[in-house]
This record gives sequence, C-alpha cells and structure tokens, in this order.
Amino acid sequence: MISNDLAAHTAAQLNGDKSLYRQVALRISELIEHGTLRPGERVPSVRRCSEQQSVSIATVMQAYRLLESRGVIEARPQSGYYVRRERWVPPPEPEMSRPTARPVEVRVSDLVLQIVRAGRDPNLTRLGATLPPPEMYPFKELNRTLASVGRRSPLAAHSYDVPPGNRALRVQIARRAMEAGCTLAPDDIITTVGVTEALNICLRAVAKPGDCVAIESPAFFGILQIIESLGMKVCEIPTYPREGICLDELADRLDRCRVKACVFTLNFSNPLGSCMPDEKKRALVKMLAERKVPLIEDDIYGNLSFGPQRPKAAKAFDKDGWVMLCDSFTKTLSPGYRVGWVAPGRFRAKVEFLKYVNTSASPSLTQMAVAEFLQNGGYDHHLRRIRRFYAAHMQRMTEAVTRYFPIGTKLTRPTGGMCLWIELPSNVDSLVVYHRAMAVKITTAPGSIFSAKQSFKNFIRLNCGNPWTDKIENAVRTLGQIVAAAGENRNGDIAKRPTRRAA
Amino acid sequence: MISNDLAAHTAAQLNGDKSLYRQVALRISELIEHGTLRPGERVPSVRRCSEQQSVSIATVMQAYRLLESRGVIEARPQSGYYVRRERWVPPPEPEMSRPTARPVEVRVSDLVLQIVRAGRDPNLTRLGATLPPPEMYPFKELNRTLASVGRRSPLAAHSYDVPPGNRALRVQIARRAMEAGCTLAPDDIITTVGVTEALNICLRAVAKPGDCVAIESPAFFGILQIIESLGMKVCEIPTYPREGICLDELADRLDRCRVKACVFTLNFSNPLGSCMPDEKKRALVKMLAERKVPLIEDDIYGNLSFGPQRPKAAKAFDKDGWVMLCDSFTKTLSPGYRVGWVAPGRFRAKVEFLKYVNTSASPSLTQMAVAEFLQNGGYDHHLRRIRRFYAAHMQRMTEAVTRYFPIGTKLTRPTGGMCLWIELPSNVDSLVVYHRAMAVKITTAPGSIFSAKQSFKNFIRLNCGNPWTDKIENAVRTLGQIVAAAGENRNGDIAKRPTRRAA
Repeated sequence: MISNDLAAHTAAQLNGDKSLYRQVALRISELIEHGTLRPGERVPSVRRCSEQQSVSIATVMQAYRLLESRGVIEARPQSGYYVRRERWVPPPEPEMSRPTARPVEVRVSDLVLQIVRAGRDPNLTRLGATLPPPEMYPFKELNRTLASVGRRSPLAAHSYDVPPGNRALRVQIARRAMEAGCTLAPDDIITTVGVTEALNICLRAVAKPGDCVAIESPAFFGILQIIESLGMKVCEIPTYPREGICLDELADRLDRCRVKACVFTLNFSNPLGSCMPDEKKRALVKMLAERKVPLIEDDIYGNLSFGPQRPKAAKAFDKDGWVMLCDSFTKTLSPGYRVGWVAPGRFRAKVEFLKYVNTSASPSLTQMAVAEFLQNGGYDHHLRRIRRFYAAHMQRMTEAVTRYFPIGTKLTRPTGGMCLWIELPSNVDSLVVYHRAMAVKITTAPGSIFSAKQSFKNFIRLNCGNPWTDKIENAVRTLGQIVAAAGENRNGDIAKRPTRRAA
Repeated sequence: MISNDLAAHTAAQLNGDKSLYRQVALRISELIEHGTLRPGERVPSVRRCSEQQSVSIATVMQAYRLLESRGVIEARPQSGYYVRRERWVPPPEPEMSRPTARPVEVRVSDLVLQIVRAGRDPNLTRLGATLPPPEMYPFKELNRTLASVGRRSPLAAHSYDVPPGNRALRVQIARRAMEAGCTLAPDDIITTVGVTEALNICLRAVAKPGDCVAIESPAFFGILQIIESLGMKVCEIPTYPREGICLDELADRLDRCRVKACVFTLNFSNPLGSCMPDEKKRALVKMLAERKVPLIEDDIYGNLSFGPQRPKAAKAFDKDGWVMLCDSFTKTLSPGYRVGWVAPGRFRAKVEFLKYVNTSASPSLTQMAVAEFLQNGGYDHHLRRIRRFYAAHMQRMTEAVTRYFPIGTKLTRPTGGMCLWIELPSNVDSLVVYHRAMAVKITTAPGSIFSAKQSFKNFIRLNCGNPWTDKIENAVRTLGQIVAAAGENRNGDIAKRPTRRAA
C-alpha cells in the first residue's frame, strides 16, 4: 500500500477538479493507486491515451508533465513514460497520543505569548503560524464591498447590531451551513468577533472556573489559553492523527473527570489535521447527548477540505441542541475582519447574553460586507481555489520534510487545513529547535504549546499555507539540519552541515 | 439664587462659545445671573446694546431672540425686552443614594435584557436608550475614510492587528488623552471592541468570581451585567447626584466589604450625570493607591462636557498605575465601529493577555479608519458641535420634565453627557410607568435596572440625545401624564388626563 500512497495522494488532490488535463492525470493516478499499472511499467503512450480518453495530445502531455512533476511517473528518452520504481514514500505517521487520564490545570500561556510575540517580526520566514497566504485572498474585492456598504448605508455606523447580530449575515451563514450538513435558521446563529469570542462565550455558558473541559491531545494552543484564562481545567483525550479523538477513551474519561464540556476541532484539527469520519461524529454526538455534555465544535478549518466536498460538522447530527457550532471567516476570507459566529443550540439564550455582555455587538459594517460578499462576491469560486492551493502546498511541505528531515521523523497526512504535525526523533527537543531556527529567522510552532502540561516535546507544527518559494524550500532544508543537529546534541554551524537525506 | 438659575444655566451653555451673538447672549445672561438686571427690569434696547458691545443690530437681535427662546427675557410690544418675572425654576435634586453597606449578588440581567430587547422596535419614541442622535454624527465622512483605508491598504484585511492593537490609533488616542490630563504613551494603550470589552478584561484582570467590586449607586446597568456575568458581587457606594461617590463612605466600605476593584464613571456618570470635581478625583486616586485597590475608570462620557473644557480623568492623577482608564468612540464618533481602548496602568500585561484571549484582535480597518479620522477628519469641530447639542437638549428635556411631570418630581442637573435621572414621587412605580409608556410606544429606562437589587423603584432615566421635535415634546408630556396617573394609582385613559402643571 505504501508504494501507492503518492498516487493516492495525487488522486485525492485532483479529485473534483474540473480542468481536463487534471482529470486525465487523476485517472492515471487511480490506475497506479489500484495496482492496474505497477512500478516500472509503461503508461499508455501519449497518442494512445489521447485516443482512449478522447482528449487532445496537448492535454495528455500536460497531464503527464503534472504527474512527472509530482514524482508519480518518469520519462525515459526515446521510450515513453513509466511508473516510477523508486517512488516517494511518505514517512510513517505518529501514533495515537496518550495523555494522563485526569483533570489538569493549563500552564501554557506565557510560553505561547512569547512565541506569538516573537513571531510578529515581518522579516521572518513563518513556518510556525497558520496565517492564510494573502496572495490567495480577495481582500480588494472584500474591501470594495465594505466601501460600497458604507456608502449606501451610512447609518450602519450608528447601528449597534446587537446580538444575535446582523441578519443578512446570519441568513448567508445559515444557507452555507447546509454544506456542512446543518439545518440552521438565521435565528439559531449569533455573530461574534472571530471564532475566539465564540469559543469564549460558549465555554462560559456551560462551565465555571474549576470545571473540567475535554480537549483533543494535542489541541490548538488558543483553546488552551482560553481555558487557562477562564480558570478551568482540561482533560486531554487520546487522539488519532487521522480520525481524531478515541471515542472509547472519551467515554471513559467523561465520567472519571466529570467533564462539563468538550471543545473539539473535528474537521482538520489544529495541529493534527485529523478529520473524524462523519459516522464517528454521529456516534460522538449521540454519546455526549446521552450524558448531557455539551460539545463546543470549532469548525474553522472545515471548509478547507482537499476533497471535492467538505466533511459534515458534528452539528449535522445534533438532534437535541447539545452541539455548539463555532466558526469564522478568518481562514477562508479575512483574518482582519474578525467575523465569526456560533450556533449554540440549546444554550442560545445564555450565549446571546454573554455575547451582549462581552462586547455589546460586533462592528456593523464588516458584518454587512461579509454578508454581501457571500451573496455576490464569488465566495464559492474562491473556496475552490484556496482548497486546491492548500492541498498542493500540504503535499509540497510533506515532500520537503520527508526529504530534508532526519530518519525517524514522522508526519501526519491531513486531508484538509493548513497544519502539518511532525514527530521528530525522540531525543530532539522542539524548543531547542525553535530557538535555533529563530536565530536564523525561521519560525516554528514547538509541540509543547499544544498541551496543558507542555508535552509533545519532540513535535513541531508547520504551516503549509505559504506560497512555495525557494525561500520556503531553503527554510525547510535549514530546519531539517537544525533538527538533525539537535538530535545529535550538536550546536554547530547549521549552514555547513550536510543533511542526512540530501535530495 | 433659584430665580437666577435659568440665566446661570444659559450662561453655562454659552460659555466658551465663539459665535458673536452667543457671546452677547452670554453677557446678558450673566448680568441677570448676578442680579445686575432683575426680574421685570428692561434689558438694554437693541440699539443701546449694539453700541455697548460694538456689534451689529442684527447680532443683538439674534442674541435677544436666543434668550427669549430660552425663557430668560420676554418681548413686550412697543416697549422692548424685559427680564422675565416668572422664570423657569429648576426642580429640586435627588439626595445622595444610601445603598446597603455589604456585598450583594447582582440580579438584574433578565430585566435589562427584556427592556433592551423591547426597545429595539424602530417605531418607538426612544426616551430610554442613550443612543447618540445619528443626524449629529459624521458617519459619511467616517465611512469614506474607511473606504479609502481599505483601498490603500488591502492587506489590512489580512492583518490580525494583535494586541495592543493598531499603532496609528494608539498614537492618536495618546495625543487626545492629554486633554483629559493624562500623559500616555501609545504603548500604554490597548485597543478593544468598545468600552464593553475593556471593562470586561479589566475586571477579569483584577478580580475573580465571588470577589466584591465597588460601584456607584445608581450604576450603569451594563456594568452590573458584566459583573453579574463574571460571578462577582458588588458593593454599592453612596453617591451624590452632582459630585459622584462619597469618599468617606467609600473608605469605610473598602475595608468592610474587602473590595477588590472599583468601577466608577466619574465624568457624567450614567444615569446620574454626576461629575466628580478634579480635586476630589485626586483624593480618590490617592486613597485607592494607598489601599492597593485598582480603579477601573469608565470615561465614555468625559468628552461630552457642556463647558468649554472637559474635566480631567482620574487617570490624570495616577502615579502608581492603579487606575485602568477605559474609553471608546461610541458616544463621540460611532457606536457601530466598536472602537474602544484601555490604558491599564500596572495591569498592562494581564489585560493585554486577556484581550488576546477574548477576541484575538479587534478588526483592523475600523481601527485604521478611526485613527485617520482623528488625525484629519475634524474630530475637534465635531466634538464642539455635539457638546453644544447635548447641552441644549439637556436643558430642553429638563424644562419639559419640569413642565409636564407632577409636583414632587426631582431632577439631576448634569453638566455633561446625555442622561437625566429623575426621581418620581415616592408612590410611583417606574416599572408601571415603563409598561404603560411602552403601551403607547414610548421607551423609558426604569430605575430598578441601575442597581444590583433593583432599588430606585421610583426613578427613571431619560435620554437627552434626541433632536427636539414635537414628537419628543409630546412624548414627555404623555410620560408626565402616565407618571401622574401612576402616582394616583389610576390606570385610566392617559390621553384624556390633564397634566398637573400644564404649560
């Protein structure tokens, strides 16, 4: 199976793509993935393929060049294209995490703040943050919509847009939630200042200081910080890198730790990139509803699926209102507009009150601009574009890490989002790597900020949202050298070190 | 003295006004205020005054018409202008409040939410809310600035503007804080989503659930709601309607109630309109610093002084960083932009962390637009304009209430802001008045939402920010009839009731 992974990977990325040459490349990838074409075998000639698929020679050439650039096939002079024998072998994946089975206090914020602040320097090569690449986002169009809304509705600057918030925006959100399998009315939704405010007020609505909240392990440090700031404890749940939390372990810990709420990112979690299969989501929602434990679902990456369709939200399976779905347009449209929302189910009244008390209202004009852009601005086209972008760059980052990092490195295989979670050899301290990389102006997110007690010491998270440039490639190479040196307890001159697996 | 109050009032409003006819009116007012011209005496003829003051006849006519419209002088046909004999007599003021001297839990949010929600109907005559009048605010110019900023800096939609927030805005805020007597550096300031977020994070920075917070009595219901939502208790401090909290009582209660923080609106508090003299502020800051009790100062009305200069903020007297100054542009520029800020003194690190955790960042473009408007947009001119507006409308509302409300009504005499606090006869239940007024589409803010235990049952707050129209005048008249009927335990046909003090 492993030898077919690259073809499978490529197929997954090409799936759903409408352009002709990519469809051809997809079919060839699938033939290889399923073993119809084996390593070393000749793929159909360009002319033959053109006849078989009823496409032009030029289209087939384009498809073959794509597959060649991905390392799936190779050209042999005077002979044609062959399935590559030595194919790219994706490295092994990390195992399920095994955090302690008791409530613990969170003590991570100081470290996170240091790292976040240090990462603001614009001269850095940012492999650490999960900022969307600005080149890929329609900021000009969005700002034009904002200008137009302000011109047409000057009094919006006067309006408070008190919770539940701007109605036009809530109508658009409700429409789009259907794609995540959710049937929401505009009045089920409350707009917020980003997903951050949504998570804050949901937690405050269902838990008190001292209460225990279940989270994934590893979990996004922002969630850890919120929980820490609210004086709550966490119970970290063992989590598979592909499918998310282990339901059996969760069932066990819900009772033992008297869990008051769960905060899970089920679709393309940060940092794991795991995606819980929809049927498992259904079981999760059922289990939690039976125990009357609210699920705060952070779906901020759900729309960044690499496949043709996005996975469902757990909210899609929510019959009794125990799921509080939180989302925002930060990763899909604009970080700076700070437009988020929550569908808090049975906790609507409490959440609406807390939104009102926390910030009175979200800014009116930004909400209106996003609403109008969603209605008219080609959001779907934009989403398809960035999904392809992230899929391609996840692949490139995966290949680069495979090439430049030392043997013993393990990688996740996300099918969406922009985070790659990397397990370094066990003797490598990712904080050492972090500091040495910062010294050469490269940021990383060290594993220790993704758990309450700063575990995952030999893990790092990399951001795959950077447009691929020589600068990025070189940064990954340098990072590989730093990791290798750290593993040998050396602190030498990084630039002169050869990599252990040079390209 | 009382018989000179109207002239004094008028003089106070005209003081500092640069336009010529208003200066003439000011001088005549002062002559009456100081007794040089007495009731029934003739004021200088128009020609005489024109010579005395070296201004044109037209200017004097304009000045006399202004004084006539204010009820200070009256024209007698063929004879000239006279000081009015029956002058407007402002009603007595409420006394200092006397809340219980122990920590109490806040139970007011449900009632507040009902009233806030009911008040959203656009067909209502809103005498209850403190919304600025949209006609008076430069929303078009501000939105144009927003459009321009978005065009010139499309990438601002990408930027997170993480705390402390947009630097250009913080520079402008620091400059303007000098007018409140504060010496602040841009880095002393953290931008927030309105003053509401600032108050939230300040409270969370210095107190925990169960802790006791000192507030004015009565206090703004929004502050009560925040404290309630955070699970804290309040100790309500006796407060004078002119000068704010009683320092002796505060000193006593700080110890007895183990107060962890004070939240005071010292300049034109809501609902009292009280303004603490600057020297008393100095004493307050000293007292709190000695006891190491942080003062969260809500200065949202400080710029709405009726006089030529705004009063100082308590922060101006803060030597050791115990004052956390919170403010926003909601009342002075735009409610819908949600741009606020805090200068948290010695608690800066904690407040910055909580801002980061609560909403990650404020929206970038709105911050940039406000910064640019402050720099270029005629903010000072606008401020002078709305100060005059509020001064004039406070006077008109005061006169109307005096005219239409029953004997026994008492009123505050604010020198800034937009709130008038009215003590009704003791047998009038303001919630009854509230409901009866709502039945005829008039909103009021009943006194019970301004204290933890819903005291002030025979008080209401009126908003003086509405442009004065017949509709408003009629609403105040109707409200006076409702109050009179409620005092006589009648529930009759309001429209047919004569007022007890008809105009």
